[in-house]
Amino acid sequence: MDDQARLEYVVSHVRETALLESTSALLEWDERTGLPSKAGNYRAEQLTYLSGLIHRRRTDREFGEALDLLQQSDLAQAGELPTGAIIRRLAKDFSRNTRLPIELVKAISRATVLGQQAWERARQQDNWLLFEPYMTEVISLRRQEAELLATDGQLYDALLDQYEPDCKSSQLVEIFSRLREQLVDLVKELGQSNNRPDGQTLRQPISIDKQRTVSRWAAESIGYDFQRGRLDETSHPFCTTLGPDDCRILTRFQETFFPSGLFGTLHEAGHGIYEQGLPGEWFGLPPGSAASLGIHESQSRLWENFVGRSQAFWRWAFPKISARVGDAWQGFAAEQIYRDANLVQPSLIRVEADEVTYNLHILIRFEIEQQLISGQLLVADAPDAWNERYSHYLGIRPPSAKDGILQDVHWSAGLVGYFPTYSLGNLYAAQLMQAAAAQLGDLDNMFAEGEFEPLLAWLRKHVHAHGACIAPSELVQRVSGQSLSEAPLMQYLRRKLSPIYGC
Amino acid sequence: MDDQARLEYVVSHVRETALLESTSALLEWDERTGLPSKAGNYRAEQLTYLSGLIHRRRTDREFGEALDLLQQSDLAQAGELPTGAIIRRLAKDFSRNTRLPIELVKAISRATVLGQQAWERARQQDNWLLFEPYMTEVISLRRQEAELLATDGQLYDALLDQYEPDCKSSQLVEIFSRLREQLVDLVKELGQSNNRPDGQTLRQPISIDKQRTVSRWAAESIGYDFQRGRLDETSHPFCTTLGPDDCRILTRFQETFFPSGLFGTLHEAGHGIYEQGLPGEWFGLPPGSAASLGIHESQSRLWENFVGRSQAFWRWAFPKISARVGDAWQGFAAEQIYRDANLVQPSLIRVEADEVTYNLHILIRFEIEQQLISGQLLVADAPDAWNERYSHYLGIRPPSAKDGILQDVHWSAGLVGYFPTYSLGNLYAAQLMQAAAAQLGDLDNMFAEGEFEPLLAWLRKHVHAHGACIAPSELVQRVSGQSLSEAPLMQYLRRKLSPIYGC
Repeated sequence: MDDQARLEYVVSHVRETALLESTSALLEWDERTGLPSKAGNYRAEQLTYLSGLIHRRRTDREFGEALDLLQQSDLAQAGELPTGAIIRRLAKDFSRNTRLPIELVKAISRATVLGQQAWERARQQDNWLLFEPYMTEVISLRRQEAELLATDGQLYDALLDQYEPDCKSSQLVEIFSRLREQLVDLVKELGQSNNRPDGQTLRQPISIDKQRTVSRWAAESIGYDFQRGRLDETSHPFCTTLGPDDCRILTRFQETFFPSGLFGTLHEAGHGIYEQGLPGEWFGLPPGSAASLGIHESQSRLWENFVGRSQAFWRWAFPKISARVGDAWQGFAAEQIYRDANLVQPSLIRVEADEVTYNLHILIRFEIEQQLISGQLLVADAPDAWNERYSHYLGIRPPSAKDGILQDVHWSAGLVGYFPTYSLGNLYAAQLMQAAAAQLGDLDNMFAEGEFEPLLAWLRKHVHAHGACIAPSELVQRVSGQSLSEAPLMQYLRRKLSPIYGC
Repeated sequence: MDDQARLEYVVSHVRETALLESTSALLEWDERTGLPSKAGNYRAEQLTYLSGLIHRRRTDREFGEALDLLQQSDLAQAGELPTGAIIRRLAKDFSRNTRLPIELVKAISRATVLGQQAWERARQQDNWLLFEPYMTEVISLRRQEAELLATDGQLYDALLDQYEPDCKSSQLVEIFSRLREQLVDLVKELGQSNNRPDGQTLRQPISIDKQRTVSRWAAESIGYDFQRGRLDETSHPFCTTLGPDDCRILTRFQETFFPSGLFGTLHEAGHGIYEQGLPGEWFGLPPGSAASLGIHESQSRLWENFVGRSQAFWRWAFPKISARVGDAWQGFAAEQIYRDANLVQPSLIRVEADEVTYNLHILIRFEIEQQLISGQLLVADAPDAWNERYSHYLGIRPPSAKDGILQDVHWSAGLVGYFPTYSLGNLYAAQLMQAAAAQLGDLDNMFAEGEFEPLLAWLRKHVHAHGACIAPSELVQRVSGQSLSEAPLMQYLRRKLSPIYGC
């Protein structure tokens, strides 16, 4: 087999694996949309069986040997896109997949299944102690994993790398601490304003049926393609990809809280638009895959907040949504909705947080999980560390674990190193929007006319088209001409919120 | 490996295959309920890949060798249930799966994909000639298959056996010709009645939303378990099983034709109730599988017609459904609905046919496909044969191929030998209901009170619990004490219809 044939073998091996991965994704999508209540056990068996098949393919020796030879070949060294990128990325993934002993993989899988069940119980009973031993086990196992994977002794980075390739926590610590200081100040300033929105317009009761119509229309308006996707409802919104032309989004509606449905849908549609923009001919391979969770989140946040919560968007959308919600918004004006959509208010629950305080929720989690992995903080002390930080950064203290450290599923599911990608998404989004505005001209004028196509085309070309061939930080650097920084996000927030709050 | 260990290996091999088969069934269910319009190609790739994995497992040499040894072992000969039945049935399936050369299997797969596409076009354009060459190819390939499979020279039986194990066409020919004569007479008699129902009550417009509520309620009332299933909508109703606790039914609604939704749902719920009654611990294996398509159809027909179109059912259901459909049935009486639900009228389209004429549609197809496989009839002459028979048996002649020979998808999909199972279902249902009544007492009294549980429990015990461990004809013989006959069905039809039509 020559290198070219070897490359073709590797590519077709990965394409076949993707057929199983996307099938597995359908099993999960179905589980979260309409699985009959008693069908959970067998669904778990199906998923376990498929994940076994997938794992075997990912760690297949022949596949690994071919990758090894390709890495040493001219094809990899040429640096030519996408060939070089494919080889490098696949080799990196293969190495990670095979470096962990199967006993550890199984132990993590078991600990996270049990961990999630324990978390569910602990949260229901508002009792941290029910979860603590499981969390201790999860952290210990993920730490062992990090020790095996880290080539440079940076344990946390080995975990972070799985969600945000090539990202280093040392860089994050620096940027995030500057971001934290400025956000804490901004929250205080806004809190002292005499002209705060109160969010009441968005709490008018609107039937789920009407909200569904609005959300579908909004997702379609910003460019989500319903011929290659669909919108469903679930308790925890998400976006999942079942094929190059099948990326589905899920949202949830609350009758007396309009933002949940609309902004939730715009958020997931942003994820979906990104997936729909990846080169479908490379589905399952690096050129057809998302660059990172951070880049993914930048796309969802961009459409949800930078577009959906902009004044220009509401100038355009207000009459159109009014017509769809019937009498509910009678007597309101676009400006009121816009103000209420930008209510900033410290709160305990991350998923309900506004654009400003959201990042503080993330930074708290990032700081804690770093210390847990480094061993500076014991799991038993994590609730206090959590509560302390909420007091300091947000000025509120969780009255109970349920609304504090037990609120997120992530740690119980073993997702350590995942949280920072949420804030990275916000930072990336701000940098991308700044660059887009510089290159496309006045975006607000476009949004006010319902013209989202220029921004979408720009994102397609500069972000989506590259798939995972360029590392996320490099991608943002290339597109925006700047390295990662908190400045564009802070500038954006202040520029938007100062006029609203009159400060 | 001793025989017991060998048996365990075989059983676990089949269980693993079932994980893939049921996953494949989800891919298909999803394709027919909500696949985005552009996602069809990749879905086909996923299905093809899985069917390759499944085929490899089904024809695995080691698995075959183990089955071979088991067949010669005491375990198979003991005749003990379910062990003996498992071994015999699996060995039979393995033999069929491996006896066909892969070239033929691929040729059939290709011919039926192309055949269905051609059928779709031909039907749309109402042009038989567009389909004829494809149909010729399908028949020729299935004939080759039959030649390889038939051990006794009976080609048609080799095909029939795949849908109705151990069924012989010689027996069917005899019973079906007696059935045909009596049905033709009955249709004529009913046609001459002066007291024919006109079906108008069931053509009152009723919103799909309301019909959906009625159908869900009706399916639940007869015993379909929504904790282990769900009801969705599609263009061609069906029932599919995705796991031991996940059997889903699909129906369709027409605003001005109530029977379509309600009876369609009862029919699919009947299929679903059967699947839900199979022993779940044997999922994927003979004891946990349906006995045959004919037995499956007996369960759907039984709940749709013998229960759902009975006078007793309507005495009970009328006020309950009336309350759910609002004003639509104001002024009607239970008796009117019952009469209209039993309108008998020769028509061209099988899927819209009533209980009496339905079997004539089937017999026509059975006679034609038998002759096609034996070579007595050329595909080119099939439309004439079709039209002739419609004239003779039903007194109407299709004005076009679209409403004649092109109406069903079956032949284009290679399903030859499948049609007779529909009529077998009706015959079995009549025999089972006769036996149930003899053992349970007056079923009508129960139905009139909405008590379906005794009948369901009886079916669970006498039919469902056996899975595929007993051949269908033997199963019916055992339960009813009679061999297969047209008499119980004709008796049932005459007893019900004579009072309605006054003849």
